Amino acid sequence: MTRKIIIDTDPGIDDAMAIFFAFQAKELEVLGLTTTYGNVPVEMATQNALTLTEIAGVDVPVAAGVAVPSQQAPRPFPDFVHGADGFGNIDYPAPAKQALEQSAAEFIIEQVRKYPGEVTLVALGPLGNLGKVLELDPEVANLVDEVVLMGGTAIEYGNVSPVAEANIINEPHAADAVFTAPWQVTMVGLDVTHQVLLDNSVLERIKAKNPEQGTFLYDCAQFYINFYSDRFGVNGCYFHDASTIAYLLDPSIFAVELGAIRVVTEGIAVGQTIFAPQGMEYPEPHWDGVPMTQVCMEVDGERMLKLYEEVMVGAL
Amino acid sequence: MTRKIIIDTDPGIDDAMAIFFAFQAKELEVLGLTTTYGNVPVEMATQNALTLTEIAGVDVPVAAGVAVPSQQAPRPFPDFVHGADGFGNIDYPAPAKQALEQSAAEFIIEQVRKYPGEVTLVALGPLGNLGKVLELDPEVANLVDEVVLMGGTAIEYGNVSPVAEANIINEPHAADAVFTAPWQVTMVGLDVTHQVLLDNSVLERIKAKNPEQGTFLYDCAQFYINFYSDRFGVNGCYFHDASTIAYLLDPSIFAVELGAIRVVTEGIAVGQTIFAPQGMEYPEPHWDGVPMTQVCMEVDGERMLKLYEEVMVGAL
Repeated sequence: MTRKIIIDTDPGIDDAMAIFFAFQAKELEVLGLTTTYGNVPVEMATQNALTLTEIAGVDVPVAAGVAVPSQQAPRPFPDFVHGADGFGNIDYPAPAKQALEQSAAEFIIEQVRKYPGEVTLVALGPLGNLGKVLELDPEVANLVDEVVLMGGTAIEYGNVSPVAEANIINEPHAADAVFTAPWQVTMVGLDVTHQVLLDNSVLERIKAKNPEQGTFLYDCAQFYINFYSDRFGVNGCYFHDASTIAYLLDPSIFAVELGAIRVVTEGIAVGQTIFAPQGMEYPEPHWDGVPMTQVCMEVDGERMLKLYEEVMVGAL
Repeated sequence: MTRKIIIDTDPGIDDAMAIFFAFQAKELEVLGLTTTYGNVPVEMATQNALTLTEIAGVDVPVAAGVAVPSQQAPRPFPDFVHGADGFGNIDYPAPAKQALEQSAAEFIIEQVRKYPGEVTLVALGPLGNLGKVLELDPEVANLVDEVVLMGGTAIEYGNVSPVAEANIINEPHAADAVFTAPWQVTMVGLDVTHQVLLDNSVLERIKAKNPEQGTFLYDCAQFYINFYSDRFGVNGCYFHDASTIAYLLDPSIFAVELGAIRVVTEGIAVGQTIFAPQGMEYPEPHWDGVPMTQVCMEVDGERMLKLYEEVMVGAL
């Protein structure tokens, strides 16, 4: 039996890695892609999501989502990480396909109500669309199977400030709503994604056996890998978004801890996902009664990369 | 040659441990005690500081300091940790001595200007008096030898919220001023103080050889030890404030890291000391140009407790 997912995304190079991963995985049925601003403006994210469905040759609908944060000013787009086109400045032609008339939030609500208890939301960007879902139809929180999101950090340093991760700081108010709503949230944050580097050797092997997707990923990834090697002196790129799909396919690759998460929405800590481990009590009450999030704290990087490669080349 | 220090304090059971430690240490000359609200109201902190000078039989002046935070509402006093009297509810008689007419900030400024470059400020409570010093006479920051403070946490969980330590959350605005002023600050926070437990066996040996101070500390400590054993299931109490004096006597007991610290003054992260390690760069600019704080990250607990015992029984 396959697991139904909707991927909320801002492609984005690591988003592309995640989306192809999900398309290739036999255990997953991708009901649709919904888009948000984040790595790029939402119009470009929508174009890029359509491009990915065309390259993969799949008939998966795309619904465009929010263009700006709900309660704060937009932050600059990180063109130094993903390129101005979100695909590492490879000048790829525009897609022929069109997005749905429905908004991202409307699409998510429709699908969750169509398959109650069966749909997992995989969020790879800022959480504005999920915030909008909770606002339009709060009951949906009880009808979703699970929310698996790439974002935040519990004990690792942040990547936009010492305590804040990029996806969360781009929409902290919606993120706080997502972490405090009555659905099961699994956070795949920097605690694990900063533990795993994808290098060209893996991408080259994927390219050899899965040329359409592999060549595109390889071409996009060069800009991304250069950013990480210049900035951090590492050989490869972090595998942020694709880690969520690995979690869906084989959660045993990860060690999780339970705790309550609240998101800071103001001041110098804005965007921080403050983690109160289960069983700890504090005089400050903000974490009391907040549902437990599953936070990925450790990952077996070798197994994750092996799983990625095997799924991408069709060996699994 | 001795090192001149002023201890800014809110006694407090671990403050008493620290203050007797400093009185006993031949390498330290305690110019005075200045008091603040924190563990108890400031009037009681002043009484308690005077009591400690009487028990130790030393002629060290006491100057009373700030009674409330500069910009936020006061928080409740933690009588469940230190007792309503700050000494574990031992009903000790009031002191005969009087505090100076000068305020804590005036006393600190006077002494620092009298001994330029020679005075180290040891802060064991909320940082309102040091904030006041910086406000009244900012140049003093250039004339102080070092500020060594118990407070905050870089990577360890907090004790008032998942990210905030009690001293800092009690006066976050002054703390941010202290961490960003142009003096050398050394932070002895929960990263190290949660690594060391003092138990009754040490206190009993001190009591046997130094009955005046030892009996008083032992009597106070029972309430404090009960709090920690009830709350955390540990055998003993954390040695928070006295760790600062150990740092002055033998910094080689600690491993320090350098970084910029900013304090959160609002929202759910209020009181957090956000640590940006030296060499890390972030898009968020709040840590740029902030002087490096020395943050104690590791401690050799055995050596620290041995040092404490030896100094307290007069063996060093």
